[in-house]
Amino acid sequence: MTEKQPRVVIIGGGFAGLYTAKALKNAPVHVTLIDKRNFHLFQPLLYQVATGALSPADISSPLRLILRGHENTDILLDHAIDIDPVKGEVILKDHPPIAYDQLVIATGVSHHYFGNDQWQPYAPGLKTIEDAVEMRRRIYLAFEKAEKEIDAEKRQALLTFVIVGGGPTGVELAGAIAEIAHGALRSDFHQINPTEAKILLLEGMDRVLPPYAPDLSAKAAASLIKLGVTVQTNSIVTNIVEGCVSVRQGEKTTEIAAETILWAAGVKASRMGRILAERTGVNLDRVGRVIVEPDLSIAGYANIFVIGDLANFAHQGDKPLPGIAPVAMQEGEYLANLLISRLKGQTIQPFHYIDRGSLAVIGQNAAVVDLGFVKFSGFIAWLVWVWAHIYYLIEFDNKLVVMVQWGWNYFTRGRGARLITGEGQNLASGQLPQNNGQNNNNLAVSSQTETLSPPIVKV
Amino acid sequence: MTEKQPRVVIIGGGFAGLYTAKALKNAPVHVTLIDKRNFHLFQPLLYQVATGALSPADISSPLRLILRGHENTDILLDHAIDIDPVKGEVILKDHPPIAYDQLVIATGVSHHYFGNDQWQPYAPGLKTIEDAVEMRRRIYLAFEKAEKEIDAEKRQALLTFVIVGGGPTGVELAGAIAEIAHGALRSDFHQINPTEAKILLLEGMDRVLPPYAPDLSAKAAASLIKLGVTVQTNSIVTNIVEGCVSVRQGEKTTEIAAETILWAAGVKASRMGRILAERTGVNLDRVGRVIVEPDLSIAGYANIFVIGDLANFAHQGDKPLPGIAPVAMQEGEYLANLLISRLKGQTIQPFHYIDRGSLAVIGQNAAVVDLGFVKFSGFIAWLVWVWAHIYYLIEFDNKLVVMVQWGWNYFTRGRGARLITGEGQNLASGQLPQNNGQNNNNLAVSSQTETLSPPIVKV
Repeated sequence: MTEKQPRVVIIGGGFAGLYTAKALKNAPVHVTLIDKRNFHLFQPLLYQVATGALSPADISSPLRLILRGHENTDILLDHAIDIDPVKGEVILKDHPPIAYDQLVIATGVSHHYFGNDQWQPYAPGLKTIEDAVEMRRRIYLAFEKAEKEIDAEKRQALLTFVIVGGGPTGVELAGAIAEIAHGALRSDFHQINPTEAKILLLEGMDRVLPPYAPDLSAKAAASLIKLGVTVQTNSIVTNIVEGCVSVRQGEKTTEIAAETILWAAGVKASRMGRILAERTGVNLDRVGRVIVEPDLSIAGYANIFVIGDLANFAHQGDKPLPGIAPVAMQEGEYLANLLISRLKGQTIQPFHYIDRGSLAVIGQNAAVVDLGFVKFSGFIAWLVWVWAHIYYLIEFDNKLVVMVQWGWNYFTRGRGARLITGEGQNLASGQLPQNNGQNNNNLAVSSQTETLSPPIVKV
Repeated sequence: MTEKQPRVVIIGGGFAGLYTAKALKNAPVHVTLIDKRNFHLFQPLLYQVATGALSPADISSPLRLILRGHENTDILLDHAIDIDPVKGEVILKDHPPIAYDQLVIATGVSHHYFGNDQWQPYAPGLKTIEDAVEMRRRIYLAFEKAEKEIDAEKRQALLTFVIVGGGPTGVELAGAIAEIAHGALRSDFHQINPTEAKILLLEGMDRVLPPYAPDLSAKAAASLIKLGVTVQTNSIVTNIVEGCVSVRQGEKTTEIAAETILWAAGVKASRMGRILAERTGVNLDRVGRVIVEPDLSIAGYANIFVIGDLANFAHQGDKPLPGIAPVAMQEGEYLANLLISRLKGQTIQPFHYIDRGSLAVIGQNAAVVDLGFVKFSGFIAWLVWVWAHIYYLIEFDNKLVVMVQWGWNYFTRGRGARLITGEGQNLASGQLPQNNGQNNNNLAVSSQTETLSPPIVKV
């Protein structure tokens, strides 16, 4: 690295930030990638950790390993807490400020409880490895507690699993829990029958997988029902307390006693969006995402870019691009290309997302695929799903173990990673989102139907 | 199960308890296995989780999965908090008491800080999955912090790793950390050179691996030095505070500034030993292990047995059997056989441990093996070590993934499971052993040289 090279600072090592860094490998720039974790998380498979099919390390790759050959790239394990666009600096928690010439913000999104953050301890969401391990703990502990419970009513509550939100994450979680009850655990208990577990998937709109075509939603719902999931649409969660969720369907509100309530309903922009708005005056959308220009920069700042789930890119189609991994990857690659072109004095076309289709998995042998020109479901769709995930996983780090583990799980219907670990510190201590009430008031949306899409993989 | 069958209650699902349960599969008894975790932990490989080579689930198997075919066996996830030998009951934390006809106690051992429990937060030990994840967090975080540190002295402390105790666990940890610094991380940083990390192994006696023959100890020390470990024998730790360990060697005491201090020096009996002594008057040894009769029962109670690391079996050789997995396995199998024989009105010979040899691994391609009639070290010893561990792992649950992960790690010198997770809750909160000062005064031994052997695998 020479001192004269432009300094590109990337905040966030998710799909967007990482693909930017990867594509800048041989560029004449000095890159600093800042992340608070030392690994990239393959988030589309996080639900498999939450349900005991894979281990955390199976879907995580050390950032230093992925970027090992990048002589021009420094990696910094730290929290970016502020930016100073006047000085051109990123302020860090444990390190002196880092100066940038070009700033890339890719800090993603977190859970969103629609202004009801007090629900979080009782209905954890799924964004981090710690979230997934906590979900896994709750799911398997519920069966263990039920085995010991002599009161029939309490036992039923222990065997009731409510998943709030019928997007891809909710569908995948509900399908996986049904497979646990009917598959992995089917002969493991003597006092209870795990196949009697009730798995309830709640969705605010009139069908699951609302971003998909209606016939795929119907097929997904049919597959879920076949697996033993109760699918309840047009259902708005009005309250959650420990062990109980209140649901309004039309005029009627019912209370469901459930030991395990999982949140897959909403996401909101990470804190960095608001900080950026305060420092630059850039506009945010209703859930706090940053409105970006056609070249992914922000208004008035040609050297500050926002990409990935945090960006609201509204220059293609009639609504913003969804918060999914393929959009993030393509934005990262586009941005690297743009930075390289600028150094050469060239200009490039605005960003254009190429939609190669959508996938969601419901369970073993069951998935839905929408490639635009063709839609299909079932076993072939499932094979496409498996292939796509293995392909992307291997790109980072040769995750042969995932293939072996999946092969083994497939033939044994087993879930070898079903450890109950930790003492529930994460959620017992009521760890709440970093945004306080004030921000929530600004960012909250009014109903479950207005969520950002949870991340899914597109091929 | 019929009501008239004798009720065998086993506390603890480690090697001893699990092998008892396994061997009672078709016996005309009703078995209840009580464990506070839902999985059996393959403890001899725990250091591989602590150093990022394997994931927790790779060395853990769900107890319900291992014992799935056992129609006569109930598994209860609970804490055994007391026993009542008069009523013949085990008292549990979250469940009504469980009545037994035959009671098997196999609750093992925990760390022992020789009466200095205040050292624990600064020098964590390695007994549980949570311990291993915390150690992994500390090891990899130290390199990340060093990369950011501009003060040379602080950077050196961040790159100093002290392992207290030169038994098998300490030797394995020191070798693995050296391999991390010289292998997995060698080209991952730009500001620091991981190969300059200082790895210091402290042992109170005059050689590492004191239970082994002196020539194997010498070979192990030579292998460690070749890997880059500083081996310091005849060294007694006199104090540990945050980031600093005081070591006395002869008359001289030195203070070593080290961000990462790991404890592999001592173990003490679990709390159940003391409870048993209070309830039955059985004798304990100096570290709290229960003195057992030749048939593994305790004096005065023909229907209460203690096996595994918690037992002090002194009827063979000139010292008690070591606290290692093969002893525990053989005790469990013997005990099942004894119980079955008693039901038939038969008597069997006292327990006799068959020592098939000892193994310890130092690093990739380096191990020491002592089969009694032959001792060897180096690559062949390492192959024996790998084979033995794969063999035992596969017996529980087909851990093909471990073979694949090891194969991958071997050729890439990689450590894919090097995630830094958690926020250090386990140790930040200063979680101390359950025994209070009073017990420690009774149980403490006076120097590092008088430890129970940490568990190693024997073939």
